Amino acid sequence: MAAGMAITLDELVKRFGGEVVGDGAHRVGGLAPLDKAGPAQLAFLANQKYLPQVETTAAGAVLISPADIEKLSKRDGGNFIVTPNPYAYFARVAQAFIDLAAPKAVPGVHPGAYVDPAAKVAASAVIGPHVTVEAGAVVGERVKLDAGIVVGRGVTLGDDVHLYPNVTVYHGCKLGARVIVHAGAVIGADGFGFAPDFVGEGDSRTGTWVKIPQVGAVDIADDVEIGANTTIDRGAMADTVIEHSVKIDNLVQIGHNCRIGAYTVIAGCAGIAGSTTIGKHCMIGGAVGIAGHVTLADYVIVTAQSGVSKSLTKAGMYTSAFPAVPHADWNKSAAVVRNLDKLRDRIKALETALAERDGDAPDKA
Amino acid sequence: MAAGMAITLDELVKRFGGEVVGDGAHRVGGLAPLDKAGPAQLAFLANQKYLPQVETTAAGAVLISPADIEKLSKRDGGNFIVTPNPYAYFARVAQAFIDLAAPKAVPGVHPGAYVDPAAKVAASAVIGPHVTVEAGAVVGERVKLDAGIVVGRGVTLGDDVHLYPNVTVYHGCKLGARVIVHAGAVIGADGFGFAPDFVGEGDSRTGTWVKIPQVGAVDIADDVEIGANTTIDRGAMADTVIEHSVKIDNLVQIGHNCRIGAYTVIAGCAGIAGSTTIGKHCMIGGAVGIAGHVTLADYVIVTAQSGVSKSLTKAGMYTSAFPAVPHADWNKSAAVVRNLDKLRDRIKALETALAERDGDAPDKA
Amino acid sequence: MAAGMAITLDELVKRFGGEVVGDGAHRVGGLAPLDKAGPAQLAFLANQKYLPQVETTAAGAVLISPADIEKLSKRDGGNFIVTPNPYAYFARVAQAFIDLAAPKAVPGVHPGAYVDPAAKVAASAVIGPHVTVEAGAVVGERVKLDAGIVVGRGVTLGDDVHLYPNVTVYHGCKLGARVIVHAGAVIGADGFGFAPDFVGEGDSRTGTWVKIPQVGAVDIADDVEIGANTTIDRGAMADTVIEHSVKIDNLVQIGHNCRIGAYTVIAGCAGIAGSTTIGKHCMIGGAVGIAGHVTLADYVIVTAQSGVSKSLTKAGMYTSAFPAVPHADWNKSAAVVRNLDKLRDRIKALETALAERDGDAPDKA
Repeated sequence: MAAGMAITLDELVKRFGGEVVGDGAHRVGGLAPLDKAGPAQLAFLANQKYLPQVETTAAGAVLISPADIEKLSKRDGGNFIVTPNPYAYFARVAQAFIDLAAPKAVPGVHPGAYVDPAAKVAASAVIGPHVTVEAGAVVGERVKLDAGIVVGRGVTLGDDVHLYPNVTVYHGCKLGARVIVHAGAVIGADGFGFAPDFVGEGDSRTGTWVKIPQVGAVDIADDVEIGANTTIDRGAMADTVIEHSVKIDNLVQIGHNCRIGAYTVIAGCAGIAGSTTIGKHCMIGGAVGIAGHVTLADYVIVTAQSGVSKSLTKAGMYTSAFPAVPHADWNKSAAVVRNLDKLRDRIKALETALAERDGDAPDKA
Repeated sequence: MAAGMAITLDELVKRFGGEVVGDGAHRVGGLAPLDKAGPAQLAFLANQKYLPQVETTAAGAVLISPADIEKLSKRDGGNFIVTPNPYAYFARVAQAFIDLAAPKAVPGVHPGAYVDPAAKVAASAVIGPHVTVEAGAVVGERVKLDAGIVVGRGVTLGDDVHLYPNVTVYHGCKLGARVIVHAGAVIGADGFGFAPDFVGEGDSRTGTWVKIPQVGAVDIADDVEIGANTTIDRGAMADTVIEHSVKIDNLVQIGHNCRIGAYTVIAGCAGIAGSTTIGKHCMIGGAVGIAGHVTLADYVIVTAQSGVSKSLTKAGMYTSAFPAVPHADWNKSAAVVRNLDKLRDRIKALETALAERDGDAPDKA
Repeated sequence: MAAGMAITLDELVKRFGGEVVGDGAHRVGGLAPLDKAGPAQLAFLANQKYLPQVETTAAGAVLISPADIEKLSKRDGGNFIVTPNPYAYFARVAQAFIDLAAPKAVPGVHPGAYVDPAAKVAASAVIGPHVTVEAGAVVGERVKLDAGIVVGRGVTLGDDVHLYPNVTVYHGCKLGARVIVHAGAVIGADGFGFAPDFVGEGDSRTGTWVKIPQVGAVDIADDVEIGANTTIDRGAMADTVIEHSVKIDNLVQIGHNCRIGAYTVIAGCAGIAGSTTIGKHCMIGGAVGIAGHVTLADYVIVTAQSGVSKSLTKAGMYTSAFPAVPHADWNKSAAVVRNLDKLRDRIKALETALAERDGDAPDKA
């Protein structure tokens, strides 16, 4: 980062809050971990175990909480920005430095893009090569559409949306302000719905699956982020809804007519079947599977690889996954699991036998 | 929907079958649920529990089965189309209304597409912006290729195929008539095959993986639908085969040389390893994993998140997944599972002890 | 394959090693399984159970190991290439025949591609239609970029890289020589990192998630192969690293700051959370989930659908998945699993009761 991009601690505090302890005129031009930062860099303390590093760091300044700064045995000569949440503060400052350093995108439509004459694109938007914007689409201020994106008929993209390369947004979907969608994600494909129209059984069954038209769309609120190659299906009649500030990782599947509550985070490879409602502030672990037509309360946590088949009506942490153990050990246990009901019957028999003996026998008397 | 698009019940029956009870000249122009439909809309009864709604609905007409119409306490003044499968009938009518309302695509090749001179594209096909059609490809009548699609060398696309944006079809694959592929899906990538060519063990191992060429293709029959970002690998020597009317959801992986039987449905996030054969009319749940080189009989159902490691030779429902429970409860059980074989041994010991005592002791006599 | 492409066994041995037994001047022009090969085709024996087929095959020559050729009861008149690893030899020869037969790509940039003037593309590279190469990217010799690919700012692609259609490589990532990436894969999307900046609990919680900038990249070594629609996230501060000769299947998710050791193979639908290190020569089964911040030793094998939540410090095979059984049977066992701790308590009670009786009662004396 060029020296010219350095900024004083006083300026940081003016922009991001907090309070300077030490030299407010000290300049920093980047961020680094405590053990690697130099005088021109800002470090942060978010985890107690690194507290000793604060006393030895060469960082130009350290982001630290009011409680932690009190624990330092010495802080003479050190510079600090005191803030209740140093990690979040770090993240905001880091983003600002990145924005400063990033090449400025030039507003306008790349000559290699195709924008339908009946689409409405803000003059401040940046439309990359090989992008397609179909009729009736509305593209907001400062929207950034990277190469290869397809924005379908009648799609609405809010201000400051950023779609990474090769994203597809099907017709009629809406994305709120500041939504970020990573490469290859697909918003608004048809939900998986087919009516069985079969007659007869077995080899003599005839008939077919009849596709259920999916005429809802996907409605994504402000500040949502969606990971690479994730898929969110359009609703059958009503919309699939992603509430504001939801964060979704890569390769996640969200079925038609789901509603995901605000601030909920969903880790990679999770799959949520259709018509399921997830509350606000939930945390869905990696590779979790959630059945269709169930409801999860606010503040539910489902740990990685677990499966949810029924509604979870209370906040709390839920689990159904086993951790891997040596294969031979596992096989021993797994063999027993397959016959657990018989094992229970044997215990029952033992209990009965013992009880009978207690009744029969005089020796307990 | 414009009033001009309304259609009489008599006309519907002429096109889709069934029998009118009531006023065949009544016009409907759309569909809605029983509790929301108005006089210009068609509703349907597919689930017994909504039977009472039929008697109070304001719908212009109701799709109903012969058995259910007999259950109505009153039907005077109501209009009905009686059909054995109201849900499938609804789906077909809904699709027809959508087709009427959809903007008509203009046949032809978008100027921003690239079609190799050695490809053969029907004049009725609609080729979107930024599409690539390579040499030797054959594109059938009324095929719709949305923006950003890549159709490889020698691919054959049957009549009325619809590929959504950014789909990739590798060289040599064949898609039957009316196949639908959703955005981002990849048909015909190389199967995952490498020959180990290593010598030595541990740190002194040398050598490498040698790629096994994948020279088969993917052969997809008529009326198949494939979900967004799903991947179906090409065969190693012979083809991977998807039989007719198979329906595959999003983010599904199908390995090389699999064969998926007709009418089988596969839900999202399922993964099927190579060289596995699945019968007809199977239902594979979400996130199910199926090992390679196994065979599933016709009419097998595998419930969500279960794992299939051996062939399933009989129709029926199979399961190996646990539903999530509160984390603390799960951990208690999981700790026992890890030592189940020891638990079994303790039961055995108890049984032996009791049997010995029965033999030893006179008190049962 | 045209007859002109046939090659003598002597020529094969000159190029790929091994030793001819029989007629070195015999010509073959393709490969086939033992039971289908004709005189112009090469077959191979990699599995003992097909040994009898070697004695009856019509193949022009058979690839066979030194040990196996000794087991043949007759080999007069047959032609053989003797090699320690017939399967790997087969793979190499098959690839050579494919390369011979494949249409030769013409070096150069397709007129429908967009290459930024500040990118550097080798003259021998083949850049397809609708490709985007951004400023600062360096594209090596004989690189093949299929249609619809996006190569971000400052990306480096080594010699002989082949990216299939619609792949996205984010800014700053590096791919080594001969890396193959299949269609739709996304290299270098932002890792999933958000700092919680909330105050209060339940309904009165306020605040938001703050995005952690992801300023690392992805560093992929030579000879790696990556499957269709797989996603590998960029690092937060340091890079995500894929060491040489790693092979990754389709729909795999690799989180930010992971390191995957050389020669490791990862099967389809596996997910690896952030900051995890996997050793060399590991085998990660299909749909395996691995938690973040753990370390797997070299030569670890995790079987399909298992979950790894802690570091595995020793080589060996690990498992935590159950195979599907008939649904009713499973439900019986699953009901017991939910109460396993109570079952254990009942065994404990039985043991105690029996021990007490042994102490109390005179009948064992």
